[in-house]
Order: sequence, then structure tokens, then C-alpha cells
Amino acid sequence: MQQRSEETRSKIIESAIKLFSSRGFNAASVDDICADAGISKGAFYHHFESKQALFLALLDGWLQTIDDAIEASKDKSAPETFMRMTEAFPYIFQSAGNHLPMYMEFWLQASRDEKIWQATVAPYRRYHKYFATLIKKGIDEGSFAEMNPDVAARLIVSTAMGLLLQSLLDPKGAKWEKVARESTTMLLNSLVKK
Amino acid sequence: MQQRSEETRSKIIESAIKLFSSRGFNAASVDDICADAGISKGAFYHHFESKQALFLALLDGWLQTIDDAIEASKDKSAPETFMRMTEAFPYIFQSAGNHLPMYMEFWLQASRDEKIWQATVAPYRRYHKYFATLIKKGIDEGSFAEMNPDVAARLIVSTAMGLLLQSLLDPKGAKWEKVARESTTMLLNSLVKK
Repeated sequence: MQQRSEETRSKIIESAIKLFSSRGFNAASVDDICADAGISKGAFYHHFESKQALFLALLDGWLQTIDDAIEASKDKSAPETFMRMTEAFPYIFQSAGNHLPMYMEFWLQASRDEKIWQATVAPYRRYHKYFATLIKKGIDEGSFAEMNPDVAARLIVSTAMGLLLQSLLDPKGAKWEKVARESTTMLLNSLVKK
Repeated sequence: MQQRSEETRSKIIESAIKLFSSRGFNAASVDDICADAGISKGAFYHHFESKQALFLALLDGWLQTIDDAIEASKDKSAPETFMRMTEAFPYIFQSAGNHLPMYMEFWLQASRDEKIWQATVAPYRRYHKYFATLIKKGIDEGSFAEMNPDVAARLIVSTAMGLLLQSLLDPKGAKWEKVARESTTMLLNSLVKK
């Protein structure tokens, strides 16, 4: 039973990504998603409270890869943790892929709905805090040069968001995964103690 | 006559910013803009081919501040040119202000319309080239350390876009103008030859 429930959830998510990307977040209805996934509306609402809740779950699943990479390297040195995160890049840039309209529509909703807005800004605020702590740790352990951890964390989160936005706006404009790796290496190089 | 025409153009732009921000790009019609600006539809179309053309003009005006800062410092050293650009920050972050819905709607259109998409990606492609050239100049004149100008330029443009996106998503989350100045200083510090 547990397994069947998991399968249903996966089917919903798969259909949602497909329909949100092709038709857009607003145009794709819960009915459409149920029809595509071959499930009942009852089953849908058993898993997700609303279409918005489903979208937030997609966003969470996507961020989970980064969180997993962070978790896996928690006993490593700060520079090593940093580089470990690049292992999530292929998945991140593949997920971002051609989903610009989906994100744009969602952010547009976020700008007009307090609850969605909170859920949208929460992750990057969390990453800002996380990186500030990581940089502080790196300075304390002697692997990073003296710097303002807060400013450096802003720089890192901004770079990540800017790269993602560019890869969304212009998927074919560069090899974004490669650009992200090279940028991370350069950024890390500017942090480490010489 | 020339002066009156300039005044009309300014009135249109002022009303457009006001209505695009409050009602959204799609909901604000050319009729609404004309009514708010107190001008005829003929006068509107004398200045702008379409509502889209008007939006692109807004975007251009906004980028002009950066271009002016670049132009004003073309005979300076690379690091100095870099710092000069921060003078455009107050204007940039003030313009970004609470205009998130306007940009989101526009980017959404961009993702579905080839012409707007071209106009949207053109500026950041241009800035990428510009910064790659500036960094190359800095390395040649001996003020910047040896590095890959292309990667460094990606880093700079990504940081700028990420900061803007965050300031749009979360205007009250930080003092973005201050954050941008500090980030620029840290970034520049990582480029200069020690």
C-alpha cells in the first residue's frame, strides 16, 4: 500500500512537470494532471492540498539534491564541502532546462501571494545563512582567508541565482553546467588562504 | 515642437511604469496608459510601435545608466572602471524596487516570443563580452591577476543578475544597494594582482 502510494505521488509529479513546462502553470489544471497521470482527483488531493502545494513540492525536491550534497560533506573541510556541492550541478541545470515559463509564472504568483512568496524566498535565505556559517568555519579552521562571511555568502548565493537565471533565460547561450563549475572554482580560489 | 514631443514621451514612460507596476504588464492596456498620461492614442503610436516596444524602451533606459558609467570611465584603469559602475547602483536598485511582477510578466512573454526574447538576452550577452574585454585589459595592464577573462566575466554578470533577482524577490530582505557595493568590492579584490 505504501509502495503504491509512492508510485502515485511519483506519477503526479512526473505529469505536473510535463504539463507545467509545456502548457504553463496556470493553464495546466489539476484535472489535466490527473488525466495525464491516470489517477483520480481524490488520489491527487490525498497527496497534495492544491496545485500550489504541488509546485512547492517540485521546488523542494529540486533543492533536496543540494541539501543532500551539503549533508554528505558535513564532516569535510569548508573548501571540500564547497566543491562537493558542484556534484549537484548536472541535476540542477538539467532540472532548470527549458522550464523558464513554469518558474516565471510561479514567481509571478509568488509576488502576489504571501504564502507562496514566503516559500519562495525561504530557500535562498536559508542558503545565505548556511554559506555564512560555512565560510566562518573555513576562516576558523584556517582554510579560508579573513573576510566578512556575510558578504561572501551573499556573493555565493547571488552567483548561483544569476547562473540559474541565465540558464533559464538562455539555455543554449553557454554550457551552463561547465560555466557553473568554472565559476565555483574561481570563487573558491578567491576565498582560500594563500 | 521637439520639446513637446519629448515631454509626451516622458509622460508615456512615467504612466507606463506606474501602471505596469500596479496592474501588471498584461492588465495595463495602451488605452489605460494614454488615459493616465492624458494623451491620444495617435500620440502614443507616434512614439512607440506597441506596448512591447514601450517595455523594451523602459529596459533600455534602465540599462543606459550602466552604459553611461562605462562610457564615462573608458580611459581609466580596469579596477577604476569597475568601481565607477557602482555609482549606477542607487539608480538600478531603486528602479528594480517593487517592480517584480512587471519583470516577471515580461520575462514570461519573452519565453514565448522570439523577438522579445532576443531583446531580453541581448543586454546580458553584451555585458558578458564587455566584462571579458575589461578583464583582459586589466590583465594586460598588470592590474588584474592572471585568470580566464571569460569565466571571470560570467562570474561578474551572474553576481549582478543574482543580486537583482534577489532584490526583486525580496526587496526588504537586505539593504541591496549596500550588499551590491560590498560584493563588488570583494569581487574586485579577488581580481586584482596582489
